[in-house]
Amino acid sequence: MSHPAYDSLTRTWTRLHRFSHLQAMAGWDSSAMMPPKGNGARADAMAEMDALLHRTLTDAALGPLLERADDEPLDDAQRANLREMRREWRSATALPEALVQRQALAGAHCEHAWRSQRPANDWRGFLANFREVLQLVREESARRADATGLRPYDALMDCFEPGMTGAQVDRLFGDLQQWLPGLVRTVIDRQGSEPVPAPRGPFAKAAQRELSLELMALLGFDFEAGRLDESAHPFSGGVPEDVRLTTRYTEDDFLQSLMGTVHETGHARYEQNLPRDWLGQPLGQARSMGIHESQSLSFEMQLGRSRAFAGLLAPRLVARFGAQPAFEPDTLYRLLTRVERSMVRVDADELTYPAHVMLRYRIERGLIEGDIEAEDIPAQWDEGMASLLGVDTRGNYRDGCMQDVHWGAGMFGYFPCYTLGAMYAAQWFAAIRRQFVDLDQRIAQADLAPAFDWLREHIWLQGSRWSTAELVQRASGGPLDPLHFRRHLEARYLD
Amino acid sequence: MSHPAYDSLTRTWTRLHRFSHLQAMAGWDSSAMMPPKGNGARADAMAEMDALLHRTLTDAALGPLLERADDEPLDDAQRANLREMRREWRSATALPEALVQRQALAGAHCEHAWRSQRPANDWRGFLANFREVLQLVREESARRADATGLRPYDALMDCFEPGMTGAQVDRLFGDLQQWLPGLVRTVIDRQGSEPVPAPRGPFAKAAQRELSLELMALLGFDFEAGRLDESAHPFSGGVPEDVRLTTRYTEDDFLQSLMGTVHETGHARYEQNLPRDWLGQPLGQARSMGIHESQSLSFEMQLGRSRAFAGLLAPRLVARFGAQPAFEPDTLYRLLTRVERSMVRVDADELTYPAHVMLRYRIERGLIEGDIEAEDIPAQWDEGMASLLGVDTRGNYRDGCMQDVHWGAGMFGYFPCYTLGAMYAAQWFAAIRRQFVDLDQRIAQADLAPAFDWLREHIWLQGSRWSTAELVQRASGGPLDPLHFRRHLEARYLD
Repeated sequence: MSHPAYDSLTRTWTRLHRFSHLQAMAGWDSSAMMPPKGNGARADAMAEMDALLHRTLTDAALGPLLERADDEPLDDAQRANLREMRREWRSATALPEALVQRQALAGAHCEHAWRSQRPANDWRGFLANFREVLQLVREESARRADATGLRPYDALMDCFEPGMTGAQVDRLFGDLQQWLPGLVRTVIDRQGSEPVPAPRGPFAKAAQRELSLELMALLGFDFEAGRLDESAHPFSGGVPEDVRLTTRYTEDDFLQSLMGTVHETGHARYEQNLPRDWLGQPLGQARSMGIHESQSLSFEMQLGRSRAFAGLLAPRLVARFGAQPAFEPDTLYRLLTRVERSMVRVDADELTYPAHVMLRYRIERGLIEGDIEAEDIPAQWDEGMASLLGVDTRGNYRDGCMQDVHWGAGMFGYFPCYTLGAMYAAQWFAAIRRQFVDLDQRIAQADLAPAFDWLREHIWLQGSRWSTAELVQRASGGPLDPLHFRRHLEARYLD
Repeated sequence: MSHPAYDSLTRTWTRLHRFSHLQAMAGWDSSAMMPPKGNGARADAMAEMDALLHRTLTDAALGPLLERADDEPLDDAQRANLREMRREWRSATALPEALVQRQALAGAHCEHAWRSQRPANDWRGFLANFREVLQLVREESARRADATGLRPYDALMDCFEPGMTGAQVDRLFGDLQQWLPGLVRTVIDRQGSEPVPAPRGPFAKAAQRELSLELMALLGFDFEAGRLDESAHPFSGGVPEDVRLTTRYTEDDFLQSLMGTVHETGHARYEQNLPRDWLGQPLGQARSMGIHESQSLSFEMQLGRSRAFAGLLAPRLVARFGAQPAFEPDTLYRLLTRVERSMVRVDADELTYPAHVMLRYRIERGLIEGDIEAEDIPAQWDEGMASLLGVDTRGNYRDGCMQDVHWGAGMFGYFPCYTLGAMYAAQWFAAIRRQFVDLDQRIAQADLAPAFDWLREHIWLQGSRWSTAELVQRASGGPLDPLHFRRHLEARYLD
């Protein structure tokens, strides 16, 4: 069947995909390889490419082509692809070029200064730059709201988690709020009476790297289609055809980098297993950031910190670092599931992490909706950390409200994805356990195929074929339900 | 003074520079980092960028802008920049888009097949693909000749060595031909009676890498603006702001990789020291491939294989690999200046290298001018190698006419640059020695500043400010003269 407008659109998206490939590799290189003096030229080159990508997506011809394609005879997958094209196009055209540029400048400026302001605990310095970032993101949210008919905060969240709304997040987080604080108290009390021997280092970087590579292989990472390198902040980058993971090794603590690698490997396998026939098209892309996070957390939390996986890990640690009490499988499992109230989100455990996210969600939504001003953040933060986690952050901006890069860079509406991802992951594994009742025994025997096969079929190969809600329904038989997350946590931490 | 057309052109070239940055990094990554399955997506992405660069350079607006800029009030440097813009524009517009695409396809196809045909000694297989490459490059040369008024072969060479002609190369190579074969005979006879102890390996790769980095530092490489990595075929890539060198280590022979690194460091320092105020503009680019080669050969041949440098190298080798007879400074110098007739250009020494280039020049010019057909190459090659070097290559295509990637990839007119570079380098050092009569003593004391200061002032910082001929005149006080090369070789090999 003939669909010239649709075909023309797919060619545009193929071009976007190819240019984004160069951009993604340059981004990875900036963090993993680039020497310091390369920074200026790299920033210029990437800004030029950003402008080209934006210009391509906002080309005046696209609107009419999208209209005409809508009337062409398309099959269901093509129609889904067209739906995602329209979403990207609407997102790009919602903002005037001048606003995009002012945001890029203000965000880069604020983020760059933040890198030294954070260690210096310089809230006032940060605030001076952040006011403009906030003002611009409010303008962005208003324009996106106009373009989508969504509420301002929802319109921002929609960029990362299409279809999700603040109302839904309120409901989901409200559910967690009912039972999670009590669970955290119970577990911390119980663990307090059961001290665990800490691993004794140092742990040589080279051995940590070998171990990381070994685990990535165990977790099915395709080394013919990706790499592992080092960077200051671990991430998963590159393109589906060539995924670039990074990690960071510290010789006194191998567990953090190791579980970081397991986490990033989850992101990587999603990318490496997106539907190949659709690569370069929106339908071939990961569904959402929450679903992406559900893959990394499937790997890190559902698999990586399970009792069965601790049993796989223990002999490998002994082989690399020699035997010590902390490497007993049972001890290792207790180390991997240690719960502690702390200030820093990225160091938080599975049980306390949602509190960090809920606080950020509350504040960032208030900032967008005008209930909170930039200068109110520290007080809100201190109060929230005290009530949610019982932690005192007063005067400590560094490990308080300045700890994350997101807001300074102008990124609002992303934080909920972390905890949505944890809930999705629990829901996936509940479904996997229904299908494979012997899942834990199989994991203990290093047979990870049931989990991977299920994720590949239900999540990875689906790309952006369905809306997030429909994907969840089709994959797990129901809508997102925090009950699975609760059951997972209770089974792991109360049994 | 107002020059709107010129300003518009500089903005276009800045954009080209930024896009080329992404392309250069992707190219480096392909060779140094990329896993095998990334290849298809990378090739697509780079082809898309090639098309964009070509489209930008052939934009219909450029011709009129170049015309108008010519009538604007420009200073001398701006006028030189405009001259180079016009050269790039003319080169890009000389070929129809369809020919460029057919050449890219045929070259990539032929080169890809060559990678397995060469080890299989499969000349007939290569010939089947190469005929089309040759036919297309003949068409290219005819079109470039039309656009420039140059002869067909000269028009190809002009892409690499602007201003150079076959007539000049004939004169220069004719001069070499008068005295070089006799010199080679004399030196080989003499060295035959003086055996040199070979280095005894193995030489650990990690130690070779440390040594390479140490030499690069000694040679002034700026590690804040570049890196050293590994690849199958060493090269110097990246951008002036961030130069990416590669090398290859073999544990049984450290000298080859080490001198390869010294060679590439010469290319790198040229790039790292191009005029910063002009980066992104044609005037800020390296003058020509011959001049570029003159920098790598200044480092490798003029400096790196000198007696004084052998004295610097010797203790460093002992420190890394332990003492052995081959690491005596005098022995090391004799190893670094060993002359041998051999089949393979890239392994050839300073004295026999020009014969390899002269043969290729003779054949490729004949191929372009129609005096030689593709199927005549082996006979021409065997005859040339026999007469120029006394080497029998009959039936050995692998290390004969199939050894280089250039022709299969459609690259004609480049080979002369290697020997032009050797002659330029000798001329630079003749000039440096006139200014610093104690040059060798200073090198022996690890004081390389005289050479570097001279090169920086006379070559690196000049970028493309002058035509090649004018650059040579200004730098060395005269036109390119093979006498300097002869004197250099006689001083090194007959003293």
